[in-house]
Amino acid sequence: MNTDQLRELLKSVQNSTVDIDTALDKLKELPYHDLSYAKVDYHREIRSGFPEVIYSPGKTLPQIQGIVKDMLGRTEGNILASRAEPEVYEAIREITPDAVYYKEARSVVVKRQPYAATDSYIAVVSAGTSDIPVAEEAAVTAEVMGNTVRRLYDVGVAGIHRLLDNVDVVSHAKVVIVVAGMEGALASVVGGLTDKPVVAVPTSIGYGANFGGISALLGMLTSCASGIGVVNIDNGFGAACMASKINHL
Amino acid sequence: MNTDQLRELLKSVQNSTVDIDTALDKLKELPYHDLSYAKVDYHREIRSGFPEVIYSPGKTLPQIQGIVKDMLGRTEGNILASRAEPEVYEAIREITPDAVYYKEARSVVVKRQPYAATDSYIAVVSAGTSDIPVAEEAAVTAEVMGNTVRRLYDVGVAGIHRLLDNVDVVSHAKVVIVVAGMEGALASVVGGLTDKPVVAVPTSIGYGANFGGISALLGMLTSCASGIGVVNIDNGFGAACMASKINHL
Amino acid sequence: MNTDQLRELLKSVQNSTVDIDTALDKLKELPYHDLSYAKVDYHREIRSGFPEVIYSPGKTLPQIQGIVKDMLGRTEGNILASRAEPEVYEAIREITPDAVYYKEARSVVVKRQPYAATDSYIAVVSAGTSDIPVAEEAAVTAEVMGNTVRRLYDVGVAGIHRLLDNVDVVSHAKVVIVVAGMEGALASVVGGLTDKPVVAVPTSIGYGANFGGISALLGMLTSCASGIGVVNIDNGFGAACMASKINHL
Amino acid sequence: MNTDQLRELLKSVQNSTVDIDTALDKLKELPYHDLSYAKVDYHREIRSGFPEVIYSPGKTLPQIQGIVKDMLGRTEGNILASRAEPEVYEAIREITPDAVYYKEARSVVVKRQPYAATDSYIAVVSAGTSDIPVAEEAAVTAEVMGNTVRRLYDVGVAGIHRLLDNVDVVSHAKVVIVVAGMEGALASVVGGLTDKPVVAVPTSIGYGANFGGISALLGMLTSCASGIGVVNIDNGFGAACMASKINHL
Amino acid sequence: MNTDQLRELLKSVQNSTVDIDTALDKLKELPYHDLSYAKVDYHREIRSGFPEVIYSPGKTLPQIQGIVKDMLGRTEGNILASRAEPEVYEAIREITPDAVYYKEARSVVVKRQPYAATDSYIAVVSAGTSDIPVAEEAAVTAEVMGNTVRRLYDVGVAGIHRLLDNVDVVSHAKVVIVVAGMEGALASVVGGLTDKPVVAVPTSIGYGANFGGISALLGMLTSCASGIGVVNIDNGFGAACMASKINHL
Amino acid sequence: MNTDQLRELLKSVQNSTVDIDTALDKLKELPYHDLSYAKVDYHREIRSGFPEVIYSPGKTLPQIQGIVKDMLGRTEGNILASRAEPEVYEAIREITPDAVYYKEARSVVVKRQPYAATDSYIAVVSAGTSDIPVAEEAAVTAEVMGNTVRRLYDVGVAGIHRLLDNVDVVSHAKVVIVVAGMEGALASVVGGLTDKPVVAVPTSIGYGANFGGISALLGMLTSCASGIGVVNIDNGFGAACMASKINHL
Amino acid sequence: MNTDQLRELLKSVQNSTVDIDTALDKLKELPYHDLSYAKVDYHREIRSGFPEVIYSPGKTLPQIQGIVKDMLGRTEGNILASRAEPEVYEAIREITPDAVYYKEARSVVVKRQPYAATDSYIAVVSAGTSDIPVAEEAAVTAEVMGNTVRRLYDVGVAGIHRLLDNVDVVSHAKVVIVVAGMEGALASVVGGLTDKPVVAVPTSIGYGANFGGISALLGMLTSCASGIGVVNIDNGFGAACMASKINHL
Amino acid sequence: MNTDQLRELLKSVQNSTVDIDTALDKLKELPYHDLSYAKVDYHREIRSGFPEVIYSPGKTLPQIQGIVKDMLGRTEGNILASRAEPEVYEAIREITPDAVYYKEARSVVVKRQPYAATDSYIAVVSAGTSDIPVAEEAAVTAEVMGNTVRRLYDVGVAGIHRLLDNVDVVSHAKVVIVVAGMEGALASVVGGLTDKPVVAVPTSIGYGANFGGISALLGMLTSCASGIGVVNIDNGFGAACMASKINHL
Repeated sequence: MNTDQLRELLKSVQNSTVDIDTALDKLKELPYHDLSYAKVDYHREIRSGFPEVIYSPGKTLPQIQGIVKDMLGRTEGNILASRAEPEVYEAIREITPDAVYYKEARSVVVKRQPYAATDSYIAVVSAGTSDIPVAEEAAVTAEVMGNTVRRLYDVGVAGIHRLLDNVDVVSHAKVVIVVAGMEGALASVVGGLTDKPVVAVPTSIGYGANFGGISALLGMLTSCASGIGVVNIDNGFGAACMASKINHL
Repeated sequence: MNTDQLRELLKSVQNSTVDIDTALDKLKELPYHDLSYAKVDYHREIRSGFPEVIYSPGKTLPQIQGIVKDMLGRTEGNILASRAEPEVYEAIREITPDAVYYKEARSVVVKRQPYAATDSYIAVVSAGTSDIPVAEEAAVTAEVMGNTVRRLYDVGVAGIHRLLDNVDVVSHAKVVIVVAGMEGALASVVGGLTDKPVVAVPTSIGYGANFGGISALLGMLTSCASGIGVVNIDNGFGAACMASKINHL
Repeated sequence: MNTDQLRELLKSVQNSTVDIDTALDKLKELPYHDLSYAKVDYHREIRSGFPEVIYSPGKTLPQIQGIVKDMLGRTEGNILASRAEPEVYEAIREITPDAVYYKEARSVVVKRQPYAATDSYIAVVSAGTSDIPVAEEAAVTAEVMGNTVRRLYDVGVAGIHRLLDNVDVVSHAKVVIVVAGMEGALASVVGGLTDKPVVAVPTSIGYGANFGGISALLGMLTSCASGIGVVNIDNGFGAACMASKINHL
Repeated sequence: MNTDQLRELLKSVQNSTVDIDTALDKLKELPYHDLSYAKVDYHREIRSGFPEVIYSPGKTLPQIQGIVKDMLGRTEGNILASRAEPEVYEAIREITPDAVYYKEARSVVVKRQPYAATDSYIAVVSAGTSDIPVAEEAAVTAEVMGNTVRRLYDVGVAGIHRLLDNVDVVSHAKVVIVVAGMEGALASVVGGLTDKPVVAVPTSIGYGANFGGISALLGMLTSCASGIGVVNIDNGFGAACMASKINHL
Repeated sequence: MNTDQLRELLKSVQNSTVDIDTALDKLKELPYHDLSYAKVDYHREIRSGFPEVIYSPGKTLPQIQGIVKDMLGRTEGNILASRAEPEVYEAIREITPDAVYYKEARSVVVKRQPYAATDSYIAVVSAGTSDIPVAEEAAVTAEVMGNTVRRLYDVGVAGIHRLLDNVDVVSHAKVVIVVAGMEGALASVVGGLTDKPVVAVPTSIGYGANFGGISALLGMLTSCASGIGVVNIDNGFGAACMASKINHL
Repeated sequence: MNTDQLRELLKSVQNSTVDIDTALDKLKELPYHDLSYAKVDYHREIRSGFPEVIYSPGKTLPQIQGIVKDMLGRTEGNILASRAEPEVYEAIREITPDAVYYKEARSVVVKRQPYAATDSYIAVVSAGTSDIPVAEEAAVTAEVMGNTVRRLYDVGVAGIHRLLDNVDVVSHAKVVIVVAGMEGALASVVGGLTDKPVVAVPTSIGYGANFGGISALLGMLTSCASGIGVVNIDNGFGAACMASKINHL
Repeated sequence: MNTDQLRELLKSVQNSTVDIDTALDKLKELPYHDLSYAKVDYHREIRSGFPEVIYSPGKTLPQIQGIVKDMLGRTEGNILASRAEPEVYEAIREITPDAVYYKEARSVVVKRQPYAATDSYIAVVSAGTSDIPVAEEAAVTAEVMGNTVRRLYDVGVAGIHRLLDNVDVVSHAKVVIVVAGMEGALASVVGGLTDKPVVAVPTSIGYGANFGGISALLGMLTSCASGIGVVNIDNGFGAACMASKINHL
Repeated sequence: MNTDQLRELLKSVQNSTVDIDTALDKLKELPYHDLSYAKVDYHREIRSGFPEVIYSPGKTLPQIQGIVKDMLGRTEGNILASRAEPEVYEAIREITPDAVYYKEARSVVVKRQPYAATDSYIAVVSAGTSDIPVAEEAAVTAEVMGNTVRRLYDVGVAGIHRLLDNVDVVSHAKVVIVVAGMEGALASVVGGLTDKPVVAVPTSIGYGANFGGISALLGMLTSCASGIGVVNIDNGFGAACMASKINHL
């Protein structure tokens, strides 16, 4: 709650149009609903531009169902459950027929409204075929958040001509998400080719000295190309959040 | 060189307005000038929105002078040397009186034009007093790149009210750079408070289990707030590049 | 055995009320009972305030049963088996009907006495829903050890108002246990809000650069808020031990 | 600012004894003073029991002097600057003759009041002679914070009888700080001998596989003795903060 | 092949009692038998005091059977297969009825001769019940190699009196093997109590900051007690080899 | 596409024997075929000497089948799928009866032509029996790529005479691949014995402080023998690529 | 000493043209000369193609002088001291006026013969200006070892056209050394462009998440381009050894 | 104090030949002398076979002098200060003229008695010239502890014949200390050649992927040769302690 909202509330208290206990309640109950095991944050959309997303791992199916039910009753927008295994999808479908499962992206969307679109687009670029699940998580998330997306897959630097040949997809985007495992070099090459912000997602694709994505992560963090923001390993969702914020500016 | 430029050149060749060897030379010489120890990339501005910046460490003073001279002769814009110790400043000043030294930011600017400004601004937020050098590197770089900047320093989460009290600086920005060492928690808190993209810079401030910035780096990468792009440890320059790209969209 | 006890024993030997071999035996057999595969430490309660707890992993079911039987015969208090999978519960139940299973906390209690309570309470605060199993391990352990506990779950810093709104739970506690994964920033924010000792438990919740809890662990160790003691990753049990010692002061 | 204080302020606004702008100012200016490079947190004492401490590394001498001056004018208590090299002491002495330098503890105290004392005491136990600087940082900090302290140095486990012989110092304390480098085993042994909370400080003393304190840190985190809270490597100050909070309960 | 053996062979060649090709063959075939997938080293016993041991992981069952068959035909001593899962035991039993399975120690012995014994003994000391499998691997291996062994289990430092009470087992041994997980402090305490060489085995027992045995490994390597030799994590076999070499001096 | 090819194309455009759109298409379509989820790189053979290889992990079976079908239609050479589990083999066999499965090497070859051979040979040397799968991946890959191979297995340094006795296999090779886990010392010993280039493959064979191959990897990188090039852990395929390039010089 | 040499010696013994003690001496003294602190290996040239090189760090100046003197008396070729600081050069110059110092490459050569050359050449390619010292170490070492070298510096992937424009230098080489810090992506791009073996040298150039060269090292080990052999961080010398072995095939 | 000594004391108490307070004092004062900053352990010689050694780093010069003075007054044997820089030597010399400085070994000995010797010897073997300081620390320490020592330096595995040629030094020793940096392979080769216990000392010699001795440490821990006990990086002193214990059996 920012200063302006605080001033307005104070005014209402001063005007006695709002009494003190009501004001206290407002301050306490406006921003979230408490399910004891979860405090669903309905204020997040105002603050950060997209409603709370259900991160599935570590939650029991009844907990996920409880959160979805709560959100169905209190919001009208689409609901996203990320990192959702098929049983999560089944559990949500028991609650509502609007659940759609994007298997490759491991994402469930309770689609109550058509996705919005933007004139500008987010380019989602992946280095290899094996990186596609993470890239799809990014692409689907971005679409749910109301963005136009263009995909460009399997353009890793071992065959640099495949990227150079499709450089228009990159250079016409408003923001570029680069998804790459192994050494993650694609981020550096793309970063050197475009004046648009690049959000880089290291993936855990690889073996041995890849160490579960560390090689790509370090490669992207130390990239010789400037202006690259890196998210967590395999975090297609987080990359989409950042790209969506940028695309909606 | 993108497809459109290639097509234009091919047309000139077809029209015989350009002969083949000239075309080949163009393809070869347009983009950079070769000083043997450095291939100064004059095409970078077209590609990535800002001229090549001189990263000072690891270069000899004569090499830095040579690059500055070359850029002075071939460009008209401001020139930035980053991570510049005082002796780098002295060396550049021998070449040109336009050199300005931002000591705290460890940056030298050969200021041949006034800095441009933007209506929107980049907020540079730091957790502690000790993080200011990195924050200043970000702020100065962003200013050189033609951005309006607002600074908000020493608002770390151990006294969360200092941030909440200044939340307007964050929420009115177009993009926010968060600079924090130790556990880097400020990025998560800021990321949870705003719908603007956040570029997070872990710093090496701290000791022991900080491991030269790893604690802040990992904290920012695994932030529970979405939409945060992370750059390398102490990389105020890189954060400014990304923020500038976003601010200029 | 401390100096006072040694003096008393020496006196008895001097008075010849205790002969030497008996004294030696006492010194040898008082503190533990030897099952060959385990030396059950019955002296621990005197020394460290709570009877030996059975850490289940790495022990065979017959070993666990043997230890429980031994403790049943030689003590009268409650018995706690931590990190207990369902088969451990089944094995203990074969021995005694007093076994109670706290599934979420993965804890078995042989409840032979009602839990004691304290006027002051321990606050157990968790960042996310996924951290609840570790938080419950802490809460159940603290309760078994005779403490009043208050739980406050899902108040992570990405929605800082959820914590600020419940800050009374924290500020009225005698000691606070903070359970958080990912970047573990909740510990810093709570540590900055209270003058009570904070025991921080990093959890392995997260992925990628979380590295099985390292990000939260390092974040808590390098916290910008002072006065935070950190226990091992996912170690809800250990946090409860420390909090219980403090709460019983 | 907690709910009670908020309610009181709201009442004053409702009564019109406080007008809105004044209320807003109060909310904004009460908690800290803004020196631009530092926001000195005068609210911290209310929240966390001790005034803000000046962590010296990374701050310029003029910044430290500025903060001390500001605190001298706005508080009446003692002021502590931690990790202070001799030049920090000299700089503070220029400002005030009350500065006292504890060289071994690398701490400067502006001593304007005699230190308070407690009936109960904090035991500060160190494994080796080389750990004394960190132990002294803990001891001096605890004393400045108004605690009685007892020191027990050089009782590492390679000569376990030295500890056993002094076990009373440990068992009569209200809380124990254990300072140890190398493998940090002293924390486990002390933790097994006492029912008092133990705050463990790993030190960077050692070489090779010590890795700057990691061996001691990991040893303490994975201690087989329960109820040990660990602070950052070499963080005597943080240990004293936690112990002081416990000792003052 | 050492210098003396070389001289003897050279003499035989000089005397023409051995012709050159035979000499070459001897040099080639004496020391091992080549099964293509394995070169069974029959010379190892001469060199390093015990016949080649079959390390089971990574070998197929037919390969293990082939090696056992080869050794049965060419040696008369006992054969040891380490890290042997039950199916390895079954496979070896198909070859010979002399196979004995030590399940806890995960060791198969083809027992063709009674184990030898020594006047002096090796003490095998473990910190916890969970460390017993590794301790048993050490104890069984030592027994197969012809050593008298005494076991002392569950004497970890959290209950230091359990060790002090049995200190005779340690002090009368010729060499002591200490097996401990978590922080591995037992090695330091034992090392401080005895003038006998200590071979320390870190185990992977523990969780979180134990990192699969790293905490114990580092703790043992940086022990404040001198004269401790450390072997690989969980390497009970290697510890027995070293202890056996020492015990047989 | 190198400068010569560019010049030729430009000439054709100038001569109007090739029109611009055709030229653009050529530039775009020559080098790969786009299956959306994969851009099969048919230009790689020209550039890097061997057709694109299918790295199986992370690809779905239909994706692998699609790539194989595409390659069958557009090339005439052998096709290699690496890291192929049995189900990959089954999937490829559904497409073509020419599929051959090298189980130990986890490699599928669609063998449409007999393997070529070279006069010189590549020596593939392994330290232990457990390293054979990686060694076979290297050997089979090298054979598919048209090289003569000689294998020398189980010659690790704990029985150095086994290697010395077969040193001719090493010294007569044109290039040597050394495959070793644990401490990887075999690479250093072989590197000190030969004037031929050595390609070292660390394997993940081992346990504990092996850390999944890190010990062997670091050992090979820091080898006291010069002239050793190291590939990724368990990367028999990559070693064969490098050795094949050298052998074909 | 290989089998052929052994046979020859055995024959001489058999013929009595060599007596046994002489043979033993030969076996003992041929391969090295013992200076007690160093055993200078004069056999290395026969085995590994280049005389022993003096690695300077960790040796005292008198030791280096002693080794050079010994080599001057026993060999006629050029002598190389690597990682040589200026004082090493001065020390060697005291011994012989033939010492030449390559400052950038930190190499001293006692040049007693002109360097040999080869028809084919080794390409030494560096990513940035700061990588030149390591690149020069590689280039100078290769020249001393009798190779023709071509340098191509500052062609990192952030300006990929600089490399593409000079791709002939790479494609006409017999073997390519790629020297790169930061993310080391240049190795992958070069590896994808050529069918020649690539020796990759990660450098410690960079900061933060570069971790002294680890980012580049991991990037090169996990490269998506096959056929890349990696040497130690900053090990220009080792790369030259491997490249020289390949170039001389 | 072991059980026998305890029994004896108890008897004296029973007999009233020793009164209780005297007994308590004995228990308290026998084992060490308390200098407050150090508790000098005079019981260590009885327990662990050699008097307490002064580890110099982290101690002030006055502390070192105080400890030496205390030992001079209470013992008659030689006194060893390890890791002693020249100023430590100077400080000790001020106290006693018997101080001898072994510069290469960084050891000061207050030599009040001639060193004892043993019939059997300890072999100290080093891989390279740069490892000699650590090897000398081991050798000097062993000599001070009364052992005969034989040195064999610069016999690393890149020239394996240098070791094979001197294999007698190894095989006739009672125990072997192997000192090696880089990949530490020498320990494996020596371990495979001898039936004597091997104590391995990894050194920090090397660079890059050596990581301050980690490569050698891991290599030695994962050695394919059994029966190797490893001590801390650069810990020549610890290796000598263990070897001395073995040699004195």
